[in-house]
Order: sequence, then C-alpha cells, then structure tokens
Amino acid sequence: MSVNFKDLAVAGVQTLHPYQPGKPIDELARELGLNEADIVKLASNENPLGPGPKALAAVEQAIADITLYPDGFGFDLKKALCEKLGVEMNQITLGNGSSDILDFITRVFVNDGDNVVVSQHAFAIYGIVAAMVGAECIQVPAVDYGHDLDAMAAAINERTRVVFVTNPNNPTGTWVGRDALVSFLNKVPDNVLVLLDEAYFEYVHEADYPDGISLLANYPNLVVTRTFSKAYGLAALRVGYSVSSPELADLLNRVRPPFNVNSAALAAAAAALSDDEYVASSIAVNDAGMKQLEQAFNAMSLYFIPSVGNFIAFRVPQGFDAAAVYQGLLQKGVIVRPVANYDMPGFLRVSIGTETENKAFIDALTAVLS
Amino acid sequence: MSVNFKDLAVAGVQTLHPYQPGKPIDELARELGLNEADIVKLASNENPLGPGPKALAAVEQAIADITLYPDGFGFDLKKALCEKLGVEMNQITLGNGSSDILDFITRVFVNDGDNVVVSQHAFAIYGIVAAMVGAECIQVPAVDYGHDLDAMAAAINERTRVVFVTNPNNPTGTWVGRDALVSFLNKVPDNVLVLLDEAYFEYVHEADYPDGISLLANYPNLVVTRTFSKAYGLAALRVGYSVSSPELADLLNRVRPPFNVNSAALAAAAAALSDDEYVASSIAVNDAGMKQLEQAFNAMSLYFIPSVGNFIAFRVPQGFDAAAVYQGLLQKGVIVRPVANYDMPGFLRVSIGTETENKAFIDALTAVLS
Repeated sequence: MSVNFKDLAVAGVQTLHPYQPGKPIDELARELGLNEADIVKLASNENPLGPGPKALAAVEQAIADITLYPDGFGFDLKKALCEKLGVEMNQITLGNGSSDILDFITRVFVNDGDNVVVSQHAFAIYGIVAAMVGAECIQVPAVDYGHDLDAMAAAINERTRVVFVTNPNNPTGTWVGRDALVSFLNKVPDNVLVLLDEAYFEYVHEADYPDGISLLANYPNLVVTRTFSKAYGLAALRVGYSVSSPELADLLNRVRPPFNVNSAALAAAAAALSDDEYVASSIAVNDAGMKQLEQAFNAMSLYFIPSVGNFIAFRVPQGFDAAAVYQGLLQKGVIVRPVANYDMPGFLRVSIGTETENKAFIDALTAVLS
Repeated sequence: MSVNFKDLAVAGVQTLHPYQPGKPIDELARELGLNEADIVKLASNENPLGPGPKALAAVEQAIADITLYPDGFGFDLKKALCEKLGVEMNQITLGNGSSDILDFITRVFVNDGDNVVVSQHAFAIYGIVAAMVGAECIQVPAVDYGHDLDAMAAAINERTRVVFVTNPNNPTGTWVGRDALVSFLNKVPDNVLVLLDEAYFEYVHEADYPDGISLLANYPNLVVTRTFSKAYGLAALRVGYSVSSPELADLLNRVRPPFNVNSAALAAAAAALSDDEYVASSIAVNDAGMKQLEQAFNAMSLYFIPSVGNFIAFRVPQGFDAAAVYQGLLQKGVIVRPVANYDMPGFLRVSIGTETENKAFIDALTAVLS
C-alpha cells in the first residue's frame, strides 16, 4: 500500500550515483580515533599553502554584513574578473564552485534523450549533471589517459548538445595543446556547445597550453570555466565562474539561483584575484612538490601519469590492490583518492601538498607497499 | 547562418523570467551617488539585528581552513539540527539556502509535462523551479491573500507531483492553522509531495500555528523546509535545510551538489542554532517593529495585510501608483519591495527593521504620499 517514492523519481535520478568526495579529515579522525592535526589529506586537490592574507581580510570585512543577502549580481567580483581577464561583465556567469556551471549548461541545453560527449577518465560531475536531465553520457576512450579529441569530435551525433573538455584533466593530469584544441573546435558543429573546464589553469607551464578565453571570439559555442578552489585557495567558500559569449551567459544566468554565491566567497574571490604573490607561492609550492613526488615514484619504480595539475595519478605495483593500499594509507593517517570510479582501478590519485605532507605520504606509501 | 542559442535552450528556460531580488544597497548607492550608510534597505526580509556573536565566532574559526573543501555531508550541522529538532541525520537535506531544496524537489520528482500546485501570491521561486523542468505551475486563487487549501487540494490532478504550501506565506504574511493543514494533508494523494516552506517559522506566535516537523510521522509525502537566513541572521552565507522521511531525504540528496553549503555557512549555522539569546532578540525586535509599522499604517489610513512574518505588504492609496511610490522611496534612500509580479500590483512589501529603520521608512513614505 505504501508509496515507493524512488519509483516516482525522474528516470535519471533513480539510477544516479552521487559524487564521492575525498574523505574529510574530521571523518577519518572520528573513525580511527586520531587527532585531526595528525592527518594528512591529499585527496581533494586543495591548496596546501593555507589561507591567503588578502582573501582572509576580505572575508573578515564581509561578515560584518552576515545578515544581508549577497549581491546576486556579484558586481564587485565580476568587475575584478573583467579587469583581470579583459572580458565584459555580460560574459560572466558566477557559480557556487565552477561545478555549478557544469550543472547550468546541461539544464539549459540538454533535454531528456539528448547526449553529452566526455572523455574516458574525465571528471565525474559531467556524467552526473547529464544523468540528472535524463541525457546519455557518451564516453570516448582515452589515449595514454588523455583526451582523444579526434575521436570525441567523431562521436558527436545529432542528439549531442554539449562536449566536455577538461584541460588539464582531473584525475589524470593530462592536457591538450592549442593546435589540437583549435582543430577540435573547428570540427564541432556550431550548434553543439563545448564546455572547456580549466579548473587547474593556473598550474600549467607548458608553452603550447591554450588559454580558452582567447578562443571565445572565434567560437561562440565555447564556454570556459575556472575556479577559485585551487590556486586561489578558496575551496571552503565555493566560487567559480564561466566566461562565454553574452548570449550564452544570459542563458546560463537564467537557471543560476539568485544568490548562489555567498557574500564571503564574493569578497574573498575579488580580493584573491589581486593577490599575485599568493598565487605565485601556490604555483611554486606545487612545482616543488611535483618534483618531490615524481622523484619518489621513480625511486619506488611506480608508474605515474605525467601531470600538469596539482595532483598525480600513480599505479600501485603488481600484486597490490589499489583499494587496499588506500585503506593502508588511511590507517596511517594519510588520505588520498581512489579512482576506480574513473575507470582506473589500479591507480590512486595524490594531491600535491607541502614538502612535509608529501614526505608523510611517501613514507606511509613506502610502509604500506613494503 | 549564425546559431541562435536561445532557440537551442530547453523549452522551460526559453521563457524563464529569473527571480528579481531586492535592490542591493551598493547598487542604489552607485545609481544615486548616495553613501551606503545613508540607505535603509527593508526589501529582503533580512534580520535587522546585525550579526549574532556565536555565528561570527564560528565563522572566524572556520575560515582558518578556507583552502579545504567543506564537509559535503555537513556532519556537525546535521548533528546540531538533530539535537534541536528531535529528528535523525538521515532525515535532513542541506541547501545553499532553503530555496536550493525547492529546486531539488522539482528536479527529483517533476518531469516535463507534469505540474505543481501553488497559491496565488506565493513565493516566486516555486514557479521558477517548476518552469526549469518544463512543468506547468497551477496557481490557485487566494482567499483574503492567503492559501485556499481546499481549492489547492481540489486542483491536484493526475499530472500533479508537488504542492507548495508556504506557512507563513511571503509576501503576504498570511498563515494556515494546524487543523486546516492536517485536513489538507489528508486530502492530498499519497503519491503527491507536499513541500511545506517554513522560512519564517521562528517569528510566528499564533497558538494554532502548526510545526510541520511534528506532522512528518503521519505524512510520508511531506517535506518541511526552514532557513538560517531570517531569524538566525545568516542570509549572506546561504544555508537552509529540509526535514523529511529518510527515503525522501535520500532522493533529495542525490541531486544535491556535493559541496553546496560552504564551510562558513556550516559553522555559522551550527553555532547559531544554540544562540537562543540572539533568536529571542530577533523576535522581540520584530514584534516591536510590527507594532510600530501597523500603527503607522493605521495612522496613515493605509490598508495592510495582517502578517505573522518579518514583513508587511501594504496597499498604496487610491490615486497613487505602487511603482512610482517605490521609486519615490528609492530617491529618499529607502529600499522596499515591489510585488506586482506577485499579482499584487497595488501593494509594496516592507521588511520589518529596527525602530530607527522603520521610522526612516515611515517618514519617507509620508513624504512620498504627501
């Protein structure tokens, strides 16, 4: 007699597997009875540098108005972004994290029965936001763990509305160069959107790495997303954005909830944009940590995927099970990220931390594998 | 040749009119060249008391971890809510404001071509979240500006998936009593959800005002939403929640973005829940301000709708245009809320402020109407 509400849910939600975030420090502390201070979390590609001074000062000031709704338009942050990026206010859409924008784009453009195209090993949220609107997610096999843009272009069919390109990709750290990207964009039909996710943009040094925003003028079907959660160190506050044509931004902003970005995030992000010193330090710490981890993996003869992000995916040695290695690291107070759900069952992903954190991870991994 | 992207948008988005928030103070200051400190904003039903000390202290502590993602589960806040409300953790869904939950419920349960039932003059977000999933919004005529629950029950048809009941209602301030609500719930089919929006719960003193959470045990199709944006004074940070059966909470949490509530909000809300003194002061200020405004409206012979919220909707006198009165108040640095889009073209809504703010509004209104 009683109603099974799951049967009443829309089809995409009935089979939906929610995103699995990295294990929080306090959760592990509760489970193992550890002190939070003794836990090293390298699981969520967070900035290990700690708070930036300008962002903190801006939050301090913003919370004096904690009882007032945020500026739903986000005037000050948009103004700062325009100055930094050389774009116009009406090109910007603000998100509660850049993942918010991934959701907006499927809500605006993807109908039940349509599809989106993604790469194998790509960020899990793309499949989730597609499923929520009842769309199929066409996953194109990767080459050397990276996007095969030719195959992705070829996979587009008449029901394709959005192609997600992640540059660099998470969790593999792979990237595509400017020529490859432009060649791909030239193949995508005008009426299919390309969401170029540049969450890790600031960390990349490669000379041929393209700045998606510079391509907007030529590709009106392009939407570029970036975040304040990584190099700008504001993951706790949730703020990201997209830059696109004004026409696309108008449509994305229609489904944006009116106060999706909180006041602390708006203030901190605007201040962080001008904190060049903090971003430079973040990048320097990442570069040094990347070398430290690569050397350690090489010394341990562990295969890893060369990464341009703030994380590295490495393969556990033959005879070991990645899930067991993950659990072994947890027991030693080190949280990394299992990536079996990214079609990489033999891998784990470690975020690049401070020198001390990286060393704690290397020591724990050495112990677990010995 | 060029693509019209609006034509590619899903049907509900093409005709969508985004939510119009209250005019922000800094926007009016920019437009009129006024000092922000000279502007009185009584437009968004915000708490006029200023920050609560416990919430502020919690934010100060939380932002030390500004680089780390929020706890996606919201353990500490859920624990505090469970203790306060006598419910279980698996009954709670956290929102980036309670309006987030209104969006979740249509995303989970409403298909293109289904409908939702709302009252005339009800909160605008219901219609927006319905339109985004392509649903029809059946608006049931109000009686004396309040919900006609009998007519709303009668309006339910085989394509109805959700009925939105706001208690008290915004922007009218009207409310429904326990017997009327129970009688309504008894009429709603088991497979139709009832979203009971109690954003203004804490302000209501009426003896017969029902606590929706106490009804959950008898009505598994009921979802009750509340917010920290009003009596708890945290509108800037965006946090609200729903309480429902664990089965419904599981479905709502499937479409909840993994980090929808930021760390500052999680910490502030958990702390605010225990700040009984702040909430009591908020209510006392509201009670006094309600009397002050009612007396002023009576003295000016202006009709107002008796309200149990933290706002009052009043009718501008014959011969005056509400939009012009709104503009006249803006010129004097007082921001109230036009409600023509709520089918109340002759009305304006004023939030209840401090004694000083209320007086500034009354003085400005007197001047505009003279």
